[in-house]
Amino acid sequence: MDRIQLDYTNLMASVIGDEHGISEAEFEALAGPAAKALAAVRARRDEDLRWLALPYAEDVLEEILRYSARVAGRFENVVVLGIGGSALGNTALHTALNSPYHNEHPPGGLPRLYVLDNVDPDLLGEWIEHFDVSKTLFNVISKSGGTAETMSQFLIFRDLLVEKLGPEGHREHIVVTTDVEQGILREIVGREGYESFVVPDGVGGRFSVLSPVGLLPSALVGIDARQLLSGAQDMDQRCETSLLTENPAMTYAVLQWLMQSSCSKPVAVTFSYSDRCKNLGDWYAQLLAESIGKRHDRKGAEVFAGPTPVRAVGVTDQHSQVQLYVEGPFDKWFTLLAVEACDHVVPIPMGYPELEGTSYLGGRKLADLFAAERDGTRIALTEAGRPNCTLTFPRVDAHSVGQYLFLMELAVAVMGELYSVDAFDQPGVEAGKVAAYALMGRAGYESRRAEIEQASQSAPRTV
Amino acid sequence: MDRIQLDYTNLMASVIGDEHGISEAEFEALAGPAAKALAAVRARRDEDLRWLALPYAEDVLEEILRYSARVAGRFENVVVLGIGGSALGNTALHTALNSPYHNEHPPGGLPRLYVLDNVDPDLLGEWIEHFDVSKTLFNVISKSGGTAETMSQFLIFRDLLVEKLGPEGHREHIVVTTDVEQGILREIVGREGYESFVVPDGVGGRFSVLSPVGLLPSALVGIDARQLLSGAQDMDQRCETSLLTENPAMTYAVLQWLMQSSCSKPVAVTFSYSDRCKNLGDWYAQLLAESIGKRHDRKGAEVFAGPTPVRAVGVTDQHSQVQLYVEGPFDKWFTLLAVEACDHVVPIPMGYPELEGTSYLGGRKLADLFAAERDGTRIALTEAGRPNCTLTFPRVDAHSVGQYLFLMELAVAVMGELYSVDAFDQPGVEAGKVAAYALMGRAGYESRRAEIEQASQSAPRTV
Repeated sequence: MDRIQLDYTNLMASVIGDEHGISEAEFEALAGPAAKALAAVRARRDEDLRWLALPYAEDVLEEILRYSARVAGRFENVVVLGIGGSALGNTALHTALNSPYHNEHPPGGLPRLYVLDNVDPDLLGEWIEHFDVSKTLFNVISKSGGTAETMSQFLIFRDLLVEKLGPEGHREHIVVTTDVEQGILREIVGREGYESFVVPDGVGGRFSVLSPVGLLPSALVGIDARQLLSGAQDMDQRCETSLLTENPAMTYAVLQWLMQSSCSKPVAVTFSYSDRCKNLGDWYAQLLAESIGKRHDRKGAEVFAGPTPVRAVGVTDQHSQVQLYVEGPFDKWFTLLAVEACDHVVPIPMGYPELEGTSYLGGRKLADLFAAERDGTRIALTEAGRPNCTLTFPRVDAHSVGQYLFLMELAVAVMGELYSVDAFDQPGVEAGKVAAYALMGRAGYESRRAEIEQASQSAPRTV
Repeated sequence: MDRIQLDYTNLMASVIGDEHGISEAEFEALAGPAAKALAAVRARRDEDLRWLALPYAEDVLEEILRYSARVAGRFENVVVLGIGGSALGNTALHTALNSPYHNEHPPGGLPRLYVLDNVDPDLLGEWIEHFDVSKTLFNVISKSGGTAETMSQFLIFRDLLVEKLGPEGHREHIVVTTDVEQGILREIVGREGYESFVVPDGVGGRFSVLSPVGLLPSALVGIDARQLLSGAQDMDQRCETSLLTENPAMTYAVLQWLMQSSCSKPVAVTFSYSDRCKNLGDWYAQLLAESIGKRHDRKGAEVFAGPTPVRAVGVTDQHSQVQLYVEGPFDKWFTLLAVEACDHVVPIPMGYPELEGTSYLGGRKLADLFAAERDGTRIALTEAGRPNCTLTFPRVDAHSVGQYLFLMELAVAVMGELYSVDAFDQPGVEAGKVAAYALMGRAGYESRRAEIEQASQSAPRTV
């Protein structure tokens, strides 16, 4: 099979017990609401939820592949200047689909990829110290075109490029991904004549990985962007049915909703038993947290909703978090990511046949140990009454990752309906942004600044 | 000042409100119990909590520095084979104290560092494909000497070394850190004559970063191990007082305890406003989760205790998790890590003075933006009633990181007393381990295997 598959047996009350599991009746009762939720989401596909159609944007893909082919071999480095939705998908794709040593040993002709998703001077300063901007392509990504972090990075690297290559020569080192007409970044593209790609309307940051936001850097570093979309298409088609038990997105949304509302599990752990898939958990953490974490429901009532996403990696976190998962509060549920077939076969040699402490390992394959640890943890979680499900990838490739990305996007959209929150805004980030503008002395924020200065008078408690 | 400082003003009810903050009375009431807890922990320093004395192990440090000097220049790569407590500290130290591009551009003569803390064949297989074992030093770390993951890795790399360098020649490529006499790894050291270092008794994995477990790899890749210990000593001395308001470890332990027990905040977020400190959050996540996440209290009663550690990175996660933090459930409290002085100065050029959307950035330093975003987020969290404290590092160097590590270790030990759990065992990881052994067909686990095979009969629910 080349489909990813969700096994949620261990979430059901029949296995995990009535207190922490989902009863058949509860699950079945959601079949109607979930179908209605799916229909409500799908109905907005040609309106404000255009990300639903991204898997089919063949013309955009062609444009990206043409550009990538044109610049192939010209740059040693690709740097993504972006943050949040402009960065997490790219990091996740690079980790999942390229070698962990890609940047140290870039495969013939391919550039390295750096996703600079912070404005810590110690991150940017180190990059500038170690790399040559004249061998680098910068992909500036901001839907709004006004993100302070990304615009600062752009100003910094543009200056370095102009200094080295001149006002003309620097241009081919910058490619911009932003709104088709709105925003300051689009205005700059017009002035400078930079190459650019479009984040279409109806594609919010956290739903943008299958747009040029994620596809362009992917194509540049050798990821099969067409297979990403093909996997997403397959998932989209699997999720056309409104039959709960046959639709993975509806099922996952219902499971999340019931785990939190009915089983009192506010913490959603994505537990990747794949080193390569570990950053998919970070990508999903944004998708879930920003979409469902809301003060108000859609009628304006205060609900302070939202599961807390946590990312763990197996087997690594068996030696870190599993103690808490097995013995701590019953406030978590788990989605294990499993991989059917690894790409590498690593035999474990016998070494010391006479030492029992290692001889049970000798002669086996590392994949056997990896699978035994994963299954052992699943069994331990289940026996400790900790609800868990497993999402199995046939292998980690662009096609299966494309399925996963689209599955989670659609599932979270459906969750929005079940939680009755707007899954597509993020009003809660505004306050911090405004305060930062005020502290930066941006024009128009003077009164906020005065307020802040007055407020910070209370006696500090320090040690 | 070169001391790290904790500001917990925004955890107090007077700032954050009665519902989510700590009252003066509550805080003061803990002064006695915290002093008692500290004394109970300190009393075990020469018994089973020898990690308390690690900062003063001058002879061990000398031995490590001598060995490092002896092998200096001989290896291109250092690989840590270890997991959990043998890995997380090393990753945290490398990220905090070396360049993020250390492995791509190792500073003159220093080796690269790889911490292979997983048994995913796609991780090890890629390493083997890209690097030369004959230019590599492997540091095999396991206190018990029986960790399945580490022993498998050891067998795999030993075999590759022997193949390339012969049974004699391979020896200098392996250095072992394990118990002084117990365990299979110590037995192998005896047979093979490997160089070795000792994890002393009374130093559990998660409290071992200041032992050779963390010091040896640090010294090998150019981290100032002496300054790590010196920072830890300073913190140890700061924490000698039993006066709550003057002892950072007591204070942090009391804050964690009150946040969970009295303010109903089960989720503890370490929010690092330093890209370099981000993996300190992972290290702390193990320390907190494994130490306090316990089913039974010390009298044997079922308590299912334990905060859930979450790691976030600023400003990055402002564009991912902050929406949830500001608007979601009131179930979290936050420890911001702040840095007083960055090592790099990165000016933001003006670029387009006529465009207001960027001109407020131009002429400033990147550090100003970074600080404004951090303070803006702190203000937004506070105004939304989300309790937060800030731990400020004067700068990110070995001395301040040493302070942090020891502070958190001691704080967690004190928490163990306040939560009344054994902070130094991890019974909950046993079940998964046993199940994995059974699935691997290890001798002695046959009946467990039969049990598992019988149990996995229930009808699977998949989609």
